[in-house]
Amino acid sequence: MFCELDIPVPDFAPVSNRAELDAALASVGVPCILKTRRLGYDGKGQFRIRALADADAAWEALGAQAAKVGLIVEAFVPFERELSVVAVRGRDGEFRTWPLTENWHVDGVLSASLAPAHADDAVIRTAVDYARRLAERTDYVGVFALELFYRDGQLLANEMAPRVHNSGHWTIEGAETSQFQNHLRAVLGLPLGDTRMLGHACMLNWIGQMPDALALLGEPGGHWHDYGKLPRAGRKVGHATLRADDVAELAQALERAGRALGREAQVVPVIERLRG
Amino acid sequence: MFCELDIPVPDFAPVSNRAELDAALASVGVPCILKTRRLGYDGKGQFRIRALADADAAWEALGAQAAKVGLIVEAFVPFERELSVVAVRGRDGEFRTWPLTENWHVDGVLSASLAPAHADDAVIRTAVDYARRLAERTDYVGVFALELFYRDGQLLANEMAPRVHNSGHWTIEGAETSQFQNHLRAVLGLPLGDTRMLGHACMLNWIGQMPDALALLGEPGGHWHDYGKLPRAGRKVGHATLRADDVAELAQALERAGRALGREAQVVPVIERLRG
Repeated sequence: MFCELDIPVPDFAPVSNRAELDAALASVGVPCILKTRRLGYDGKGQFRIRALADADAAWEALGAQAAKVGLIVEAFVPFERELSVVAVRGRDGEFRTWPLTENWHVDGVLSASLAPAHADDAVIRTAVDYARRLAERTDYVGVFALELFYRDGQLLANEMAPRVHNSGHWTIEGAETSQFQNHLRAVLGLPLGDTRMLGHACMLNWIGQMPDALALLGEPGGHWHDYGKLPRAGRKVGHATLRADDVAELAQALERAGRALGREAQVVPVIERLRG
Repeated sequence: MFCELDIPVPDFAPVSNRAELDAALASVGVPCILKTRRLGYDGKGQFRIRALADADAAWEALGAQAAKVGLIVEAFVPFERELSVVAVRGRDGEFRTWPLTENWHVDGVLSASLAPAHADDAVIRTAVDYARRLAERTDYVGVFALELFYRDGQLLANEMAPRVHNSGHWTIEGAETSQFQNHLRAVLGLPLGDTRMLGHACMLNWIGQMPDALALLGEPGGHWHDYGKLPRAGRKVGHATLRADDVAELAQALERAGRALGREAQVVPVIERLRG
């Protein structure tokens, strides 16, 4: 569908058996990623192929899925930034987006999201336009996210997630209307709420286990979400959002929070972007 | 307790029988209000005495309560404004207030709240100081509201409500941390959240029955709360909050909302205050 809508995507090739995997590796090249076509999330259902010699291991890991959900080989894009458009479309076709968000992943799982992303107007316009084309083409109703890779001034679509999205969790405290409320408004046929931001926001995901809430609750603009899940490696068990009136204040808050929580590595790339 | 803390209050006299009511009317004067000492809310347990001739009717209405919860006669204050301080105190004694709020009542029930109130710094300081004294004297933990009358540059305490308060409902969307979240933080012994406002906010109570939500949901900065209660005269069944970045924007939003909802009379005093 991306191709049909003239939305650029990384090189790819479908794979339904072992021979097609070899052919796909030849056409797409390495490094690349072998993926299930459906039901993948948080890096699950993906195998990264660094060299042709990894093909057997990749097939070992995912070959059984070929008949069930289908596989695809996708070029690995050495992107500079990963961005997402969180958007909502109402039953009447009204379309709104929250400000563009930049995302950082660790081991295939979202680690941090920053909004608004630091991107020039042309990039923002293109990203929003792609999201709108997708929503209109599918007559979509509700909230969805379009994940994009940014490289050399170009945007490549990574995936469309047809649901409220982790990269939009900052909207709970950082926007006039959250993605959750607007999803309900959309599916109920109510007018959509205002998607403007209140300042600047960064969401930090807690993966595996929750850090100590006390370290963040004293932070002005710090908001804590504990999903009440059992700790488990790789599992999203909660998140925090830091909201601030300006970029400098947000960078300082992230620095304090990263130190207090022992999560310096998680906040460093965001702080670097803010101080860019 | 107000007296003990040097917090000015309207003239009053306790009443435990019919003879004491006459004595109280003589000392306090008319107009005044006969009130139950406990368990009153939304104008319930109150009888307004406009002239001495109303004494019998007042006793008829509330005399039976004298033995149960006690009665009081309180001077009627022809106040210029009614203000409230919504405050929170933590287990460790940390004390914070949200910006001062101005309130409008209709038939004894809160109709509209505006924050921040248009008040000069000295009034704000005094109001916050009164709230702090009360909280410290009672070693209070959690959210409470102090209701104040403003007249001729003076503040008189009306009542202290030891709970989250209707005049603080605007904090859900209008403040970094809502009164509800800070009440939980306080009683759980967690650090208190930031009480700063995000712009300007006005809460409108829906009394008796809900207006049509559709008329407000299209308003940027409009937030809707339906308590799911059965309609009943005088009952608070929901509220809306309008949030805006500045005073002019809020006045315009109130004008549009009042018209769309058919609630012009409810928004007029707030708009007049905003346009000073």
